[in-house]
Amino acid sequence: MSFHLDTPSKVSIVEVGPRDGLQNEKTPLTVQDKVTLIDALSNTGLRRIEAGSFVSPKWVPQMANSDAVLTSIARQQGISYSALTPNMRGLTDALAAKADEVAVFGAASESFSQKNINCSIEQSIERFIPVIDAAKAASVPVRAYISCVLGCPYEGEVSPQAVLDVSKTLLSLGCYEVSLGDTIGVGTPKKTSALLSLLLSQLPANKLALHMHDTYGQALANVLIGLQHGIASFDASVAGLGGCPYAKGASGNLASEDLLYMLENMDIDTGIDLQKLIKVGHHISVKLDRQNGAKAGRALLA
Amino acid sequence: MSFHLDTPSKVSIVEVGPRDGLQNEKTPLTVQDKVTLIDALSNTGLRRIEAGSFVSPKWVPQMANSDAVLTSIARQQGISYSALTPNMRGLTDALAAKADEVAVFGAASESFSQKNINCSIEQSIERFIPVIDAAKAASVPVRAYISCVLGCPYEGEVSPQAVLDVSKTLLSLGCYEVSLGDTIGVGTPKKTSALLSLLLSQLPANKLALHMHDTYGQALANVLIGLQHGIASFDASVAGLGGCPYAKGASGNLASEDLLYMLENMDIDTGIDLQKLIKVGHHISVKLDRQNGAKAGRALLA
Repeated sequence: MSFHLDTPSKVSIVEVGPRDGLQNEKTPLTVQDKVTLIDALSNTGLRRIEAGSFVSPKWVPQMANSDAVLTSIARQQGISYSALTPNMRGLTDALAAKADEVAVFGAASESFSQKNINCSIEQSIERFIPVIDAAKAASVPVRAYISCVLGCPYEGEVSPQAVLDVSKTLLSLGCYEVSLGDTIGVGTPKKTSALLSLLLSQLPANKLALHMHDTYGQALANVLIGLQHGIASFDASVAGLGGCPYAKGASGNLASEDLLYMLENMDIDTGIDLQKLIKVGHHISVKLDRQNGAKAGRALLA
Repeated sequence: MSFHLDTPSKVSIVEVGPRDGLQNEKTPLTVQDKVTLIDALSNTGLRRIEAGSFVSPKWVPQMANSDAVLTSIARQQGISYSALTPNMRGLTDALAAKADEVAVFGAASESFSQKNINCSIEQSIERFIPVIDAAKAASVPVRAYISCVLGCPYEGEVSPQAVLDVSKTLLSLGCYEVSLGDTIGVGTPKKTSALLSLLLSQLPANKLALHMHDTYGQALANVLIGLQHGIASFDASVAGLGGCPYAKGASGNLASEDLLYMLENMDIDTGIDLQKLIKVGHHISVKLDRQNGAKAGRALLA
């Protein structure tokens, strides 16, 4: 078995800690706490930061202050601060708060779509169309998240074809990138590779990102498979912020520090300063009174 | 970039929790506790269990009861219970305790060899020769561990050529397998792949095993690279037992459960029952009053 490791030489990381991470932390943060976190992240070299969500506060109270957060951060040139916008109301608020980028979020599993956003996959796409159109009219790029691409907490297996169908639809509507979410972290290298092989037979690698959860410790191995397929955009959460709502006590998001440690030591350029990122991860872990979920963070701070 | 994932269809796991793991835990266990752990591991389908170490108790007090442990466990047919034997005295004791297999341990870094076993690499090899010869005379297989194959806490970078040299020497002396240890967990896929490319240019894959530490969260990604190179023997520690003596508070050994979760979901046969292994990991974590270091364990128990 002769093997040669081939990966992109440059990778873009989307820091999702302030949104996807904090949304799943039990300790609520004030506007100022969130602004402090985002401003610190802005000084690490990150170029894409998910800063908030304009979802009804009835559903996601942790994100009720996204408006104030987005208007209070010290914006830096070259950094895109993004926000989730499930509908027109959310988009209007996000644009008013000057989000540089917005995101819609769908699923590859019908049951998850119903339970998470109360509609079928098809209905969710119908809802996204005016949001995407209005964002484009305002010259604001739209990213798309697809949940449950490697498994669903309600259905179990999810067909790669379903992921391909939703991805193609969202890209054809004008989303610039699809972030493939392993929402419950059940992906392993073989499944991830099979999914990417199918998607990349019809879609270019630069339209896809991976959003891996580390619930079963598999996230970085899956990222490695993504790199080997030519994927060069990955979501991660500083200090591994966020848990898994489907398995209490389990870990959730891949920690940005662990991802960056791997990329940096593979000579893959990200533009991010690992030492600075580790300090941010340490501070937010102390603030939230939780264990730092980044192993590279814990080791380098030891 | 077209990529196809190719791995062995069958993998052997060496469970090192009862030795490498417990040796680095601060809570001491009684003989009965250790016997209970090993007997439980014997019922999971594992075929190779590192059960003790015949090192001077002056250096490793946690292993002082290896003799009693090895003579008290309920041995099962088809399982090899191994012990570390740094010298003739250790070998004599291990043979008396009926170890099925013994292991010598050297290093690829001169400084580490000096600090860990108080002699140069060359001197360590000289010491191993009579041990290996006597074990062979007793028809007991000898495994070799090599520390610091991807980095050293004292020297930093370690040359792949040094790892190749020690590996060749130990195999030529009669060790049946060399376990390549990333003692401080600094390995990343690019380095691991480069090391294996060199080693496999001169050695067969079935003479090599990987012993990866998860100090920086990289262990499973490195294992994946090993699989892609055709390596089919991996060390791991139930519940991630053991820490990193060079970074207090950091994680150490790769958790067997996380490794098995990956292999099982890649349809790679190990013969081990994941659910049973997770229960063992849970019980020993409770016993030691520590967090379960296996993410797959925590998630499946949640």
